[in-house]
Amino acid sequence: MRGNKGFLLISPFPQKINRFFKPEQIVDLDEIITVKNLGDEDIDYDLIDSLLPDTIAIIGQFDLPKTRLEKAKQLKVIFNSEGNFAQNIDYEYCFQNNIYVLNCGEAFALPVAEMALGFALDLARGITKTDKEFRNNKENYLAEACKNSVLLSGSSVGLIGFGFLGKYLIDLLRPFNCNIQIFDPWVPDSVIRKYSAVPVSLDDVLSSSKFIFVLAGVTKENEYMLNREKLSKISRDAFFILMSRAAIVKFEDLVRCIREKRFAAAVDVFPTEPLKDNHEIRKLDNVLLSSHRAGAIPQAYEKIGNMIIEDLKLILKGLPPVIMQQARRETVGKLKNKPSA
Amino acid sequence: MRGNKGFLLISPFPQKINRFFKPEQIVDLDEIITVKNLGDEDIDYDLIDSLLPDTIAIIGQFDLPKTRLEKAKQLKVIFNSEGNFAQNIDYEYCFQNNIYVLNCGEAFALPVAEMALGFALDLARGITKTDKEFRNNKENYLAEACKNSVLLSGSSVGLIGFGFLGKYLIDLLRPFNCNIQIFDPWVPDSVIRKYSAVPVSLDDVLSSSKFIFVLAGVTKENEYMLNREKLSKISRDAFFILMSRAAIVKFEDLVRCIREKRFAAAVDVFPTEPLKDNHEIRKLDNVLLSSHRAGAIPQAYEKIGNMIIEDLKLILKGLPPVIMQQARRETVGKLKNKPSA
Amino acid sequence: MRGNKGFLLISPFPQKINRFFKPEQIVDLDEIITVKNLGDEDIDYDLIDSLLPDTIAIIGQFDLPKTRLEKAKQLKVIFNSEGNFAQNIDYEYCFQNNIYVLNCGEAFALPVAEMALGFALDLARGITKTDKEFRNNKENYLAEACKNSVLLSGSSVGLIGFGFLGKYLIDLLRPFNCNIQIFDPWVPDSVIRKYSAVPVSLDDVLSSSKFIFVLAGVTKENEYMLNREKLSKISRDAFFILMSRAAIVKFEDLVRCIREKRFAAAVDVFPTEPLKDNHEIRKLDNVLLSSHRAGAIPQAYEKIGNMIIEDLKLILKGLPPVIMQQARRETVGKLKNKPSA
Amino acid sequence: MRGNKGFLLISPFPQKINRFFKPEQIVDLDEIITVKNLGDEDIDYDLIDSLLPDTIAIIGQFDLPKTRLEKAKQLKVIFNSEGNFAQNIDYEYCFQNNIYVLNCGEAFALPVAEMALGFALDLARGITKTDKEFRNNKENYLAEACKNSVLLSGSSVGLIGFGFLGKYLIDLLRPFNCNIQIFDPWVPDSVIRKYSAVPVSLDDVLSSSKFIFVLAGVTKENEYMLNREKLSKISRDAFFILMSRAAIVKFEDLVRCIREKRFAAAVDVFPTEPLKDNHEIRKLDNVLLSSHRAGAIPQAYEKIGNMIIEDLKLILKGLPPVIMQQARRETVGKLKNKPSA
Repeated sequence: MRGNKGFLLISPFPQKINRFFKPEQIVDLDEIITVKNLGDEDIDYDLIDSLLPDTIAIIGQFDLPKTRLEKAKQLKVIFNSEGNFAQNIDYEYCFQNNIYVLNCGEAFALPVAEMALGFALDLARGITKTDKEFRNNKENYLAEACKNSVLLSGSSVGLIGFGFLGKYLIDLLRPFNCNIQIFDPWVPDSVIRKYSAVPVSLDDVLSSSKFIFVLAGVTKENEYMLNREKLSKISRDAFFILMSRAAIVKFEDLVRCIREKRFAAAVDVFPTEPLKDNHEIRKLDNVLLSSHRAGAIPQAYEKIGNMIIEDLKLILKGLPPVIMQQARRETVGKLKNKPSA
Repeated sequence: MRGNKGFLLISPFPQKINRFFKPEQIVDLDEIITVKNLGDEDIDYDLIDSLLPDTIAIIGQFDLPKTRLEKAKQLKVIFNSEGNFAQNIDYEYCFQNNIYVLNCGEAFALPVAEMALGFALDLARGITKTDKEFRNNKENYLAEACKNSVLLSGSSVGLIGFGFLGKYLIDLLRPFNCNIQIFDPWVPDSVIRKYSAVPVSLDDVLSSSKFIFVLAGVTKENEYMLNREKLSKISRDAFFILMSRAAIVKFEDLVRCIREKRFAAAVDVFPTEPLKDNHEIRKLDNVLLSSHRAGAIPQAYEKIGNMIIEDLKLILKGLPPVIMQQARRETVGKLKNKPSA
Repeated sequence: MRGNKGFLLISPFPQKINRFFKPEQIVDLDEIITVKNLGDEDIDYDLIDSLLPDTIAIIGQFDLPKTRLEKAKQLKVIFNSEGNFAQNIDYEYCFQNNIYVLNCGEAFALPVAEMALGFALDLARGITKTDKEFRNNKENYLAEACKNSVLLSGSSVGLIGFGFLGKYLIDLLRPFNCNIQIFDPWVPDSVIRKYSAVPVSLDDVLSSSKFIFVLAGVTKENEYMLNREKLSKISRDAFFILMSRAAIVKFEDLVRCIREKRFAAAVDVFPTEPLKDNHEIRKLDNVLLSSHRAGAIPQAYEKIGNMIIEDLKLILKGLPPVIMQQARRETVGKLKNKPSA
Repeated sequence: MRGNKGFLLISPFPQKINRFFKPEQIVDLDEIITVKNLGDEDIDYDLIDSLLPDTIAIIGQFDLPKTRLEKAKQLKVIFNSEGNFAQNIDYEYCFQNNIYVLNCGEAFALPVAEMALGFALDLARGITKTDKEFRNNKENYLAEACKNSVLLSGSSVGLIGFGFLGKYLIDLLRPFNCNIQIFDPWVPDSVIRKYSAVPVSLDDVLSSSKFIFVLAGVTKENEYMLNREKLSKISRDAFFILMSRAAIVKFEDLVRCIREKRFAAAVDVFPTEPLKDNHEIRKLDNVLLSSHRAGAIPQAYEKIGNMIIEDLKLILKGLPPVIMQQARRETVGKLKNKPSA
């Protein structure tokens, strides 16, 4: 009576199934819901449409307009396995029809937080810079070589955006006893204070932090928010660490600041990826360059698989999901993050 | 009646006075003890000998054999400002005559711990490596670029040596929830367990840790302890991070392991510094190179100044020093760390 | 144009308005929404009905059947200020019409957690018992008096239920380094593991914990779950601490266990309150008695006021509430907690 | 060749050997040092004197004047198993002859810290008081019963004395996020700041703390320091918790404050113990009474046994002890704690 259980429809293109699940996990899932694994080569909408009437749960980020959703009368949950709420789903239909749309984004938060901390320590201590000097027989030693090195411990840290990334980063920063100030207009002050941080304005984060971490997702409201005028508030010995999305900054303004040595930076995301070969930033030397490598590590994908399984089990037991992030009516329409698989 | 107060004799060569103290701090000290600042250009033993009869406290690491110490009948404390207990002091005389010999080494522990964490995150995530690829238009993006990246969180960590460096590092590692195992034959098990770590043998640290941190000072017993046979126990995907002293390892054996890609490494200390220009390790690519830059940052020297002032004040009030590390009869003769100012 | 802003309707009977808000807070609220404060003497349904068409937000726990909710076409949020999701609201109507039903329960979690810790330390060390002996000139001193005292640190702790109460308690327990095991069938294992605890069966919590904390709300599934058979699994030297709801246990079975000295207990909640004067438990002596005093302290009510204001401001800005707990379709119908103001 | 190993002389009167060691631990010790267990009924000085020439280590607190110590030419360590440095040892002789005098006091710090926290929560929430009301059918319920209850979380906490007790207590207080201020003239500011606390004057601790913990040992300098004038600085809603030694306070002044309901208190130590039956404090009702029960629990004694074994092993290996507290020349003569076994 397998069919009675309804379908779990898996079609995660452009993601890869085996990043999320080991084969035995799929087998285990099939014990509690009939798995229809459509592969990850591309998206077969005809096949999808034919399966939707019996589908209870979907893993993927293919287009789900109202016309398609209306076919899925038993649908309870859509697991987005890409990390963003893209605008190719009729969210309002889902809200009205008790269909959860769940996002795996939290799975990337710990890898991003570790990377952000690694970037901060690299900038504070000149790790990458010294390795390069060593390769050119130009290294100095001991105190002479450390004149510009500073501790992260006890320093002033500013976070722009306080979602998952910020919460995971603040956990890692705890033993450093930093003075942490946070700008996030979507987050009430008491939430920030609960994390022993101080809610401040964007200008305050920029002008009075030694380490500035950009951790916000892109919305209609904050796109290109960090322009030349805002970046000019950053103090000359600060470290600017761009982790979440390039579109938060006017990228050419950031490049100019780096070129003019207004501050040092680490950059993991770019307006277009791959970055073109002759982009000026490749030659600048007070910037640490990273190719969108903060989140997408194998352990993050394994975690996504586990998150999906745990929330799916709750839903099949008639309980609410508690692991993954739900799309919310008020904000899902404002998000502008681009896919980044 | 300045003279009645006795002298604080400052002669920190090869260290620099102004790394430790701001001018106003010297002025403040002079309120409670007559400061005899001999400068830091070199060591004037004649002048020192003439001042010793009235000297209560010394800051420096010049030679203090018995013949010289016997002149200093009022001497209560020697502040070593270099970070090691060198063998140029008659410690036994000091022990028998109630002269504290205090070491500033703890001041370097936090900078070293932050650097060690930075190295670990760099190796785990390929930070320096990716920056180099970027400069050569060779970077990959996203999951494809992160195939070998791993989390520090939840991993197995091994510490070789559990003095100040280890204790500060373990504090920074706390939010990472690692499984930490420690080898240190001088430290009882209960001390290690108090830090939520597990005491193990050297072989166990080497064979079952993903991240191995070498944090021990050099003694007669552990010199060249990490030879080819020991290094061969390290697993192929491990990260070997050499922080404290190069003489713990047989350096040519370590280089061979790196050359043969047996494991990846970060190296901050070398058998001779500066390292000679044509040393093979400069060309190897699964090693992160750093020129003895982990400890000697400006904030460490400022902390030494503050530590000296606090312990000196206690001693002048007739209380025991509690900040700096005391030389101890049983171990001071076994230490073989070389000066590293 | 005050009226254009819509109404905040406050009618918190049997709660008291001034527990939640200082007068100036009400004034401030009135700047952003027209406050209709109906007082807390009783509930005037006629007045409520007349105001509902312009009402955006409600603070209170009065009856809201579908017929009444249909009058409130602009209603966005109902702030329950009592702490439970009672069954006098048509939740399904709210879910379908995008009306948030929010619960202040988290505000009580910290006071309850502190009280639970206080009870545990009292039982472990005989605090109340010794004070009573002192009053009767019967106290013993020192080791002789402490033969049965145990540390909480390092002990085995079991939690039954892992909602807010459990999460706040586990935070307070962190420095005690206990081995914590948790039974909660609504919470996935990964959530429990994230708190460094171990998910186990109810029987395991009961049979292998030294300190057992009952922290679950009452549902159709767990009512009277801790009956004689279950309670018999508790070990003879354990401490049973009943914090959340009396209806989790068969109370007469618990009393029998205490009478037979099967284990020691602390009890803050009773099947009927006030407990009748001749109830046997009042005379038993290996039980610590408390009159439902764990949560309802002044600071909890102040926090509720702040929580309401913060979430209301988010909602009025078009953002989702993030502070208070939302009623969820799957579980709200299963809850059986009784009012306890 | 057992004799060659020298003797471990055990004579812990008035303490009990089997509180410290299990029989198998003594057997194990005898493998590395010849155990001469003189029992704990009384002290046989003739026997002791005959064994001293071959004695390497002593466990006990019997009299050790110079004349007796001079017999013990091989003596390396005296383990005081009572918890105080009493004035019946010639400490100066020990310092000059490289004999460690070690104190087990730290073993009591965790039990005392847990008890102090238990007292604080009891006073803040009226735990003992409510239990008493319950027994008399006088209890109130819910908010009405909690009007005077306060959170420990976020409150101002003052510590008088910052030795082991303070450090263990501050660890337990960490999740409560209190504002902690400390008075201890023997401890430099940087040590207090390292624990995220603020060094202040005694008057500041008294006048601006909600919870005041007395944790100092008695010295010539602080005896009877908390007299009527000092106690009058305590605010009317504060909680005064006397943990370490009664002689820090003028006890009759404290009793008067309690009688006049100037503040509430918890008292674990008394000027004479047992307290006489008709002592006024037994009848006062805003005080929690405890009969010197904070430290001497079975787990503390087991820990002392383990501490002795670990430090003894280090000493026999030629390493310095690192677990127990060393007597220090500057302070050992100032201590006035009375025995309390």
